[in-house]
Amino acid sequence: MSRDLEPHRIVRLEHDAVVVLDQRLLPEREVDLRCGTVSELAEAIRVLAVRGAPAIGVAAAYGMALAAERGDDLDAALATLAASRPTAVNLRWALEAMRDDPTRARAERLHADEVERCRTMGAHAVELFPEGARVLTHCNAGGLATGGYGTALGAVRAAHEAGRVSHVWVDETRPLLQGGRLTAWELEQLGIPHAVIADGAAASFMARGEVDVVVTGADRIAANGDTANKIGTYGLAVLAAHHGLPLVVVAPTSTLDPSLAAGDEIPIEERDGAELTTRFAARNPAFDVTPGDLVAAIVTERGIHRTPYTASLPRETAAAR
Amino acid sequence: MSRDLEPHRIVRLEHDAVVVLDQRLLPEREVDLRCGTVSELAEAIRVLAVRGAPAIGVAAAYGMALAAERGDDLDAALATLAASRPTAVNLRWALEAMRDDPTRARAERLHADEVERCRTMGAHAVELFPEGARVLTHCNAGGLATGGYGTALGAVRAAHEAGRVSHVWVDETRPLLQGGRLTAWELEQLGIPHAVIADGAAASFMARGEVDVVVTGADRIAANGDTANKIGTYGLAVLAAHHGLPLVVVAPTSTLDPSLAAGDEIPIEERDGAELTTRFAARNPAFDVTPGDLVAAIVTERGIHRTPYTASLPRETAAAR
Repeated sequence: MSRDLEPHRIVRLEHDAVVVLDQRLLPEREVDLRCGTVSELAEAIRVLAVRGAPAIGVAAAYGMALAAERGDDLDAALATLAASRPTAVNLRWALEAMRDDPTRARAERLHADEVERCRTMGAHAVELFPEGARVLTHCNAGGLATGGYGTALGAVRAAHEAGRVSHVWVDETRPLLQGGRLTAWELEQLGIPHAVIADGAAASFMARGEVDVVVTGADRIAANGDTANKIGTYGLAVLAAHHGLPLVVVAPTSTLDPSLAAGDEIPIEERDGAELTTRFAARNPAFDVTPGDLVAAIVTERGIHRTPYTASLPRETAAAR
Repeated sequence: MSRDLEPHRIVRLEHDAVVVLDQRLLPEREVDLRCGTVSELAEAIRVLAVRGAPAIGVAAAYGMALAAERGDDLDAALATLAASRPTAVNLRWALEAMRDDPTRARAERLHADEVERCRTMGAHAVELFPEGARVLTHCNAGGLATGGYGTALGAVRAAHEAGRVSHVWVDETRPLLQGGRLTAWELEQLGIPHAVIADGAAASFMARGEVDVVVTGADRIAANGDTANKIGTYGLAVLAAHHGLPLVVVAPTSTLDPSLAAGDEIPIEERDGAELTTRFAARNPAFDVTPGDLVAAIVTERGIHRTPYTASLPRETAAAR
């Protein structure tokens, strides 16, 4: 019933390439994409063959190790990888860690640490799930997004193992359907009951009393708890507040960006409208920003934060450095 | 630039068939679907080849006239058509009108009246659009949905002609993309500036201050103003209220159902989860119910209603009978 998603299946460094499980082809096909150069890897990140803020950081770390082994210019490699996605802060964090020690061993440790952090976050988050919780989640903050285990989905997994989760509503998450393709696939493998819904249906299930808690990941979190995450998260946050439901954000410390006082400073990636329609004009922001005051709790590997976030989030990042 | 969508292009009665423009194939192809029997027409309604509460009513009226000309059992024809979609009340209303006079002339008059009502609603609604309004709409409440001109989109059209509309945000409206396929197509033909967005992005554009008014149609409205409309409308209503934006519902009197005190009595059609995904479990309610207190105004052919709706809506229906 339960089949784990091994970290090396999602992203790994072979002797001459960073190899990622091509998430664009899931759930229909499980195909490895080999990136023999940093440019190829940056393109794989840009087109979302590998996606999710922590997984991008891990892939980029392997890319730096590959560049070092090839004798590439490391500053150029770092710049190329840093430019691949603008919103996730983990990417920058991982690249800076690799600049100091651009070795295979450092990248593998960074990957293992990322997975271990997810397990720790999951353990912390369990208490935020009521018994028999019906969970709603958005996008994919699972093993695929983190290189193993998952943030939001790791928390769901830990809470399910503790007997606290009865059902997961999976926002399909347009335009790229990371929920309907990836989260549903992971939940199926883990044997956790679930149903995919249209993003527009989430409010209706809340109004019917069929949701107990909303759980998402994050791409970047400002010092005041303002959280950038997949487009649609902010709307869910407003809806959760309207229905008296908690929104729990699960994300590693590397997602915190205390250099930003508030979310309006977070750059929001605008992607090609063709992801929505090739026939008509379209606007396609990939992320939105949820004000910290709509977030009931932020769970990192160090524990559970609550408002006012300015009191504890910046301190945590300082301690992590 | 502006090309009108003639009512007979959307739905008409030829000598041996009800002919509908197959909305499943738009915008790629404009193909007529010929329904030679009531069963074929009911199937066309069920699979959404023709959709939108008023347009379904018109198509069903033509179906009754066809049944009468073929010498079919009219009670059976009525029952077959009535069962094709459960949520729209116009369907029942049109069928009852046709039971008394199941002629071609009656059906054509019902169709012409429907279009005329849309024009009247549009004229009433203009004052609800501020100068330069940036409008957000959901699903398709345009000419395609009504057999000509449109309800919500008719209002947008009238307001645009009055110089009051600068831009329309079009929710793509999963799972069937009536916004991204049909509303965008109609706006393109009418020369009204627009951009398709993911349903989950609406909140973000509201937060950025890029929306002035939200306008939708309705499938059924209870005596207290509770409004059943395409899934996603209720979430938009909560989001509009949170951002201090008015939600305007535009729908003909035939949409009002004063026999229902409140929206929880409206039957909600649950459609096949395969519209969302064929790979995983899914839940797919086609409609949701927006409480009347989240609706700033309901515009019918008789004028503008405001809360408390119980004071005026039931009176309007009585007057229309």
